[in-house]
Amino acid sequence: MRPFSSPSDGSVAALAGGPPTPADGSPPPTGLLTGLSGTPAVAAELSDDALLRAMLDAERALITAAADAGVAPLAAAETIAEHCRPDLFDPAELGRAAEAAGNPVVPLVRELTAAVPAEARPWVHLGATSQDILDTALALVLGRAAGPVLAALEAAADEAARLAGQHRDTVLVARTLGQQATPTTFGLKAANWLLGLRDARTRLLVARAALPVQLGGAAGTLAGLGPAGCEVADRMAARLGLAVSPLPWHTRRQPLLDLTAALGAVLVATGKVALDVGLLAQTEVAEVAEGGGPGRGGSSAMPHKRNPVDSVLVTAAARRGPGLVATMYAAASQEHERAAGGWHAEWEPVIELTRIAGGAAVRTHRILGGLQVDAARMRANLAATGGLVLAEAVSARLAPLIGRARAHDAVGRAVRAAGRTASFRDALLADAEIGAHLDAAEIDAALDPANWLGSAGRLVDRALATHRRGDADEPGADDPGADIGEPG
Amino acid sequence: MRPFSSPSDGSVAALAGGPPTPADGSPPPTGLLTGLSGTPAVAAELSDDALLRAMLDAERALITAAADAGVAPLAAAETIAEHCRPDLFDPAELGRAAEAAGNPVVPLVRELTAAVPAEARPWVHLGATSQDILDTALALVLGRAAGPVLAALEAAADEAARLAGQHRDTVLVARTLGQQATPTTFGLKAANWLLGLRDARTRLLVARAALPVQLGGAAGTLAGLGPAGCEVADRMAARLGLAVSPLPWHTRRQPLLDLTAALGAVLVATGKVALDVGLLAQTEVAEVAEGGGPGRGGSSAMPHKRNPVDSVLVTAAARRGPGLVATMYAAASQEHERAAGGWHAEWEPVIELTRIAGGAAVRTHRILGGLQVDAARMRANLAATGGLVLAEAVSARLAPLIGRARAHDAVGRAVRAAGRTASFRDALLADAEIGAHLDAAEIDAALDPANWLGSAGRLVDRALATHRRGDADEPGADDPGADIGEPG
Amino acid sequence: MRPFSSPSDGSVAALAGGPPTPADGSPPPTGLLTGLSGTPAVAAELSDDALLRAMLDAERALITAAADAGVAPLAAAETIAEHCRPDLFDPAELGRAAEAAGNPVVPLVRELTAAVPAEARPWVHLGATSQDILDTALALVLGRAAGPVLAALEAAADEAARLAGQHRDTVLVARTLGQQATPTTFGLKAANWLLGLRDARTRLLVARAALPVQLGGAAGTLAGLGPAGCEVADRMAARLGLAVSPLPWHTRRQPLLDLTAALGAVLVATGKVALDVGLLAQTEVAEVAEGGGPGRGGSSAMPHKRNPVDSVLVTAAARRGPGLVATMYAAASQEHERAAGGWHAEWEPVIELTRIAGGAAVRTHRILGGLQVDAARMRANLAATGGLVLAEAVSARLAPLIGRARAHDAVGRAVRAAGRTASFRDALLADAEIGAHLDAAEIDAALDPANWLGSAGRLVDRALATHRRGDADEPGADDPGADIGEPG
Amino acid sequence: MRPFSSPSDGSVAALAGGPPTPADGSPPPTGLLTGLSGTPAVAAELSDDALLRAMLDAERALITAAADAGVAPLAAAETIAEHCRPDLFDPAELGRAAEAAGNPVVPLVRELTAAVPAEARPWVHLGATSQDILDTALALVLGRAAGPVLAALEAAADEAARLAGQHRDTVLVARTLGQQATPTTFGLKAANWLLGLRDARTRLLVARAALPVQLGGAAGTLAGLGPAGCEVADRMAARLGLAVSPLPWHTRRQPLLDLTAALGAVLVATGKVALDVGLLAQTEVAEVAEGGGPGRGGSSAMPHKRNPVDSVLVTAAARRGPGLVATMYAAASQEHERAAGGWHAEWEPVIELTRIAGGAAVRTHRILGGLQVDAARMRANLAATGGLVLAEAVSARLAPLIGRARAHDAVGRAVRAAGRTASFRDALLADAEIGAHLDAAEIDAALDPANWLGSAGRLVDRALATHRRGDADEPGADDPGADIGEPG
Repeated sequence: MRPFSSPSDGSVAALAGGPPTPADGSPPPTGLLTGLSGTPAVAAELSDDALLRAMLDAERALITAAADAGVAPLAAAETIAEHCRPDLFDPAELGRAAEAAGNPVVPLVRELTAAVPAEARPWVHLGATSQDILDTALALVLGRAAGPVLAALEAAADEAARLAGQHRDTVLVARTLGQQATPTTFGLKAANWLLGLRDARTRLLVARAALPVQLGGAAGTLAGLGPAGCEVADRMAARLGLAVSPLPWHTRRQPLLDLTAALGAVLVATGKVALDVGLLAQTEVAEVAEGGGPGRGGSSAMPHKRNPVDSVLVTAAARRGPGLVATMYAAASQEHERAAGGWHAEWEPVIELTRIAGGAAVRTHRILGGLQVDAARMRANLAATGGLVLAEAVSARLAPLIGRARAHDAVGRAVRAAGRTASFRDALLADAEIGAHLDAAEIDAALDPANWLGSAGRLVDRALATHRRGDADEPGADDPGADIGEPG
Repeated sequence: MRPFSSPSDGSVAALAGGPPTPADGSPPPTGLLTGLSGTPAVAAELSDDALLRAMLDAERALITAAADAGVAPLAAAETIAEHCRPDLFDPAELGRAAEAAGNPVVPLVRELTAAVPAEARPWVHLGATSQDILDTALALVLGRAAGPVLAALEAAADEAARLAGQHRDTVLVARTLGQQATPTTFGLKAANWLLGLRDARTRLLVARAALPVQLGGAAGTLAGLGPAGCEVADRMAARLGLAVSPLPWHTRRQPLLDLTAALGAVLVATGKVALDVGLLAQTEVAEVAEGGGPGRGGSSAMPHKRNPVDSVLVTAAARRGPGLVATMYAAASQEHERAAGGWHAEWEPVIELTRIAGGAAVRTHRILGGLQVDAARMRANLAATGGLVLAEAVSARLAPLIGRARAHDAVGRAVRAAGRTASFRDALLADAEIGAHLDAAEIDAALDPANWLGSAGRLVDRALATHRRGDADEPGADDPGADIGEPG
Repeated sequence: MRPFSSPSDGSVAALAGGPPTPADGSPPPTGLLTGLSGTPAVAAELSDDALLRAMLDAERALITAAADAGVAPLAAAETIAEHCRPDLFDPAELGRAAEAAGNPVVPLVRELTAAVPAEARPWVHLGATSQDILDTALALVLGRAAGPVLAALEAAADEAARLAGQHRDTVLVARTLGQQATPTTFGLKAANWLLGLRDARTRLLVARAALPVQLGGAAGTLAGLGPAGCEVADRMAARLGLAVSPLPWHTRRQPLLDLTAALGAVLVATGKVALDVGLLAQTEVAEVAEGGGPGRGGSSAMPHKRNPVDSVLVTAAARRGPGLVATMYAAASQEHERAAGGWHAEWEPVIELTRIAGGAAVRTHRILGGLQVDAARMRANLAATGGLVLAEAVSARLAPLIGRARAHDAVGRAVRAAGRTASFRDALLADAEIGAHLDAAEIDAALDPANWLGSAGRLVDRALATHRRGDADEPGADDPGADIGEPG
Repeated sequence: MRPFSSPSDGSVAALAGGPPTPADGSPPPTGLLTGLSGTPAVAAELSDDALLRAMLDAERALITAAADAGVAPLAAAETIAEHCRPDLFDPAELGRAAEAAGNPVVPLVRELTAAVPAEARPWVHLGATSQDILDTALALVLGRAAGPVLAALEAAADEAARLAGQHRDTVLVARTLGQQATPTTFGLKAANWLLGLRDARTRLLVARAALPVQLGGAAGTLAGLGPAGCEVADRMAARLGLAVSPLPWHTRRQPLLDLTAALGAVLVATGKVALDVGLLAQTEVAEVAEGGGPGRGGSSAMPHKRNPVDSVLVTAAARRGPGLVATMYAAASQEHERAAGGWHAEWEPVIELTRIAGGAAVRTHRILGGLQVDAARMRANLAATGGLVLAEAVSARLAPLIGRARAHDAVGRAVRAAGRTASFRDALLADAEIGAHLDAAEIDAALDPANWLGSAGRLVDRALATHRRGDADEPGADDPGADIGEPG
């Protein structure tokens, strides 16, 4: 059989000869799969419609700012602004026309120019280059999409804080290099998640707030706007709520790198939660389970299974973060005044990175919000080594009595003996030197994990205090605009 | 102003509470941009519809193979096979339902089971796990999409071969570290492109031919198929034209890594052509230009410009290759029998990598097919240093007469003198030692780049011979199925 | 306190002013750490001394080949060849002198020229460019270093084959998405490791065998060698045992990409083993343990711990693979005849990739050679869900009696009942419909994992047959040179 | 011939059998090459000796802080602190012993314990885990190495500011997509470099200042330090001049990600300078040249060449940035309380990233400090299209007279005519409509690039003002400790 036959015509003639069919008019490539990495609220802000709207927002703000600065006639500006309506344009058609120019702004400007009355036409896209509009639109789109990502991160952090508080004293065993180590608390584990989520959110807030308008014109000199160039750029930024850049950033992409690094951090922080939850939910560990709901994580062939689906999907997204981050850094070294490829390489990856960071944030919120914590199982797992994980605690209790060195040796002896006799407690009791200094009650106290938690509770309190304090001093906390996109 | 406000409801409640809206029902995220990185013929094979069709192809082949092996009743198999029709299913609905299960196969199997008569239902998806169907479908989809990629690569290689032959003796200056070095030919440059494109194509052919069926069942043991498991798997492979794997490859992803490495090579080889064309098309060099066409590469603000749009877009795609390759390698270390995230991380990146490799291949074909070569400009640029790039040639002509060491010193002296007197030829003529051995005609012959091309012509011939020979012995050259998707 | 003070002089003046100190004369940056990622036998082949030796091997082969082809006088060639001895050169000095030229070949050629008698001097480095020598030397060094990597991979594969054979029928539970699924065998798990290691080894063998000599001269035309250029290149390849390239590959880096992809695959395949071993060695799972030895994996603070150190270090190396692979792909798009940076970017990453792939291969061999397999614990873990992991088996046994649909429903009912009554076996016995068709003995048979292994044994046999067959037909199996570096 | 034979014994027995030779005792792998990517002042801070010193700094600070907090006896603390001297330890020996434990801290603690008198031994490494010491040491080492990187960045930024000021009005042509666009100034180009370098430097300053101490003990609870755990950690931080972390960051790696993102930005910003310089130095462009010096960038075979060696080496380093950044992000998702591999994967890449960022910063300083700017050549290149690059300027001058639309059409007509008649100026003069409104003097004024620079000068001033202002308000500007390592 012909393995890779297909009804579509893949001939060379169809591909490259005849009239070119430049834009990709085919159905979206991975719709069946995108729902598993993204989330609707974020994806909607990154859609074609959203990008088109943002490009028109940029054109409108440009001409309005130019009129404000006295560079363009007010009437023409108003006319153009009225035509910057997405419903007047066909994204698919623009997409098809984009290829000949190398970007979608060229056909958009052509269409917009055609749409306005003749007297306004010369003022469309005044003094701008395509990159001015597309970079500004990307800043808008990415900033808008960051809204629900930030909201989900904040909600997830709040759930982590709730878990940290509720389980401040819930003991479980710490695991290092995959092995049971010594006791800790589930609260401390959740506090660690909390700080990771908060750190990522803070970086994303800062990066979003710094997204600048782009306006430089063909050469980055604003030559087409006369002496008022800088004023137009600054007014345009103000109209769009974007930051001002001292210079055009056509080939200085630090604002996108800051966003990239922050989104990468979102995937690391959410990936950490998912990784831990997935491991704690292993059948043999079973200390937590995802909240699930009807049909979630079920397997038709294996009715006993409940897969930690959200953790799996967040883990998958996190696995994709580094490659996308690398692509943005690789694209960022751009030559001369506007780059031949580096710029074009950024568009889809930064959108994709935002999209999957959003999916990861929403799913992490759901994981933490619905997490089922089995404290009894945690205690049972902690007891599985018969107290060996508390050898250090016994040693610490002995040390003041016989010195740290002798205490360490004696406990080591008991650990080795326990390997043979199956009970560490018995081995401790049977050891002459230990028995001479600690009675059964003292040994039982040493073997109680609740007595060997060190500063776990205090550390949880520190994390929660950081969380509460952070709410007050984060970027834009006193700016009602900062929570836009995150109503409620 | 509120910078990132938007009409969509990004609230936490909307995101995570209430009835979950799991699938991403929003419009495709980057349709305005995907046309600039992809190409329709490849994108069509990677669409939702194509993936759905391939999943149903897998289910059909599974049950038919099971019937062939006597594991399933023939009537049930026929009934199920008849229902494996894409038009009976709604991809968007499946996408929405996929999230609760973590993959789109679970709802597809549910729908397919509901669609068939009751007696056939127990036989749907017989002995399979979701990954069996999705991996097999991905193998089909990627293999089918590779068809037009391979066709475009072959067509591009043929154009490179044509250029290599036509310009076998067209001299231009070789450039190393960005500096003019010594003469070479445009034919040799094209021959180098040719081999790069051929190497990438060969690796993609090999990787495509090795894409295996996936069938292992829940644990990879084929337990649900009784003793005939291996037979069913092998028959299923034969029906789909896929390769057989000795074991299920649920967590052994070398077939995808081979495809990844090959697609990465496609982006490197096409990226090399685009990089060279972009540099040769610089205004100051102007040795080549893209063929263009009405409106291609134009700039409204700068009527004199003709941007090398295809080179720019291929360069952009090439810049994205390494990150996608890295993601596939990062996803490939998968634990146990089926992975919690690594597998899910592969789907979109491998599709994206195939999609942009296709766009790059088609555009490279167009670049090479339409390339305008300015041999006169090449000679002019070669002469720009006044013959200094031929110092080595003069030295070689002197060496038999006065020894290599003295020849080297003498020419170096003339080079330094030329820096002051503006003509290397004059400096050579004026040098007593050189003038004693070479007359003006001999010096002019030494300064003729056509006399200092070494084995360039022979190397071109070698590359062309390799190209012609390769057509005969490539994988599947004697297999009519191998050129499917590449008619003509 | 001043956190980052240091005794070294980090002043700007010291950095950039005064006489430049170009080469990095400081001690090796991470010697304390490299032992944890690399392995001595591989690292030795990648050392400075090894690189210097290889560069001299390249110069010797070049001049000898030139003499063989009649392009250089035999006496000069012999004299030069005699001076291509590493002990005549100081790598540190060459390193310092390299920076002004941008590569270490320029000072090496200068030193070599100075070392030979005057009459031989003009023939040193005849017709070559620096990249010819360094690329050839890298091909030699990487090929030599691949020897112990391949040997370790083969040894690791043999150990995996041994485990697959010994444990062909050792049952354990398959785990999918981190959850217990249905039974499989440890033999099948090892067989999967085996194929992964074999696949990676095969790719590395192929890539090593294809490493070509580099010889093109300044412009890639071999102009400095007259009409015999191709003959010299081919003779040079033969002398060094390297492959012939139809054209110089100065800016066509597919040979290095093939090696990169293969080394990436080595890290994926070894990383898979390490990942599985690390998870199976978790305290709560405890189905395997690393062999260890005195002091291996111990923790001073936690005497009960035995960390799976080799798995951890292999996992760490595997985590680094994708970034190094990406770097090589990113470097591979090189412009014109010789690249300004892309080439230079390859050197350290490809050496580092080879180095850590070697460390991973050796440690994986040690992991598999010493692996302690606890079959009793495997059975115990398999029984932990009270037979629920065998629901599919009960269903399959019921299906011929009451139909697949009713069987599936009945078993699902029992699974839900078991959730309440704690014993799946009891629930099955208590179910009226099931009890009417299966007696206790039949239910016990269904719940015996050994009866629900499907084709596991046969799949192991297939993998072992592939392994044995592969030994006969691998690249260079009939070529005594191919196993160089892997004696025994 | 046997291609890959070598004197070293690569046999399996040598690799894995017999007494293990765990540490990599071979010579440093790439000393001949590291000088081309790194720089001595940075490399020295990242050496084995520096790491060993930092680990001992960490141990000393730990026990001293513990004594300060009353947790350890003062005498023991003083004794231990006195033994925290690098000269008492052999890094190579520690390296060899490290492998059995998986990190170099275990043998270091063993050696340190053996070195101190018996009564002090129990107090060595009090309450700490290996990761506490190694993470703290890495924070110290990376922070110290950042010193000369920051110094070089500041010096490079100052040179860029100097160039921006000196060439504020030096015209050259802007290039977009590789094509000449419209005029700009070299000052604006340098101002763009300046801001890139400044942005990267600021991020590195911030990230360095946030590098925290690590102290958590085995489980991250500080259990081994009793109730004073947090106090000991905070005192230890203060002693070392490191930041305090609210919680141990054993598996929350944001501090390293911030450093990674900053170092990645350094490579992007320096890579941008190198990319531009390399392109501007092309033989056909020749607008700038590296300063060079005796022997720099020379080519023995091609005496006319002067390679932009520093730009090439910085470009190479920049090409390696994304892969290293990706590796750090990939390593950062770490499970549980301490990770099995993710942590170990960070060590060498973060050191390597710092090392090559340092090399790039120093070389960029040298490039900018020595840059030879050829303003005459810039004007000549600007004139190469006969004024076509100023079509926009002519259009702008016509627009007020005949309307923007008619002006645009008229100029387009002249551009097309110029394509045939060779002089744009003549075509403008010959055009009836244009000639009716602009005389030759006005056309010449329009074609003078100095009259079409828009806001270039003002933008340069903005950038310089930002640069000067930034010096006052950067992180740690009022903290004498912050400029440690950057004297002068």
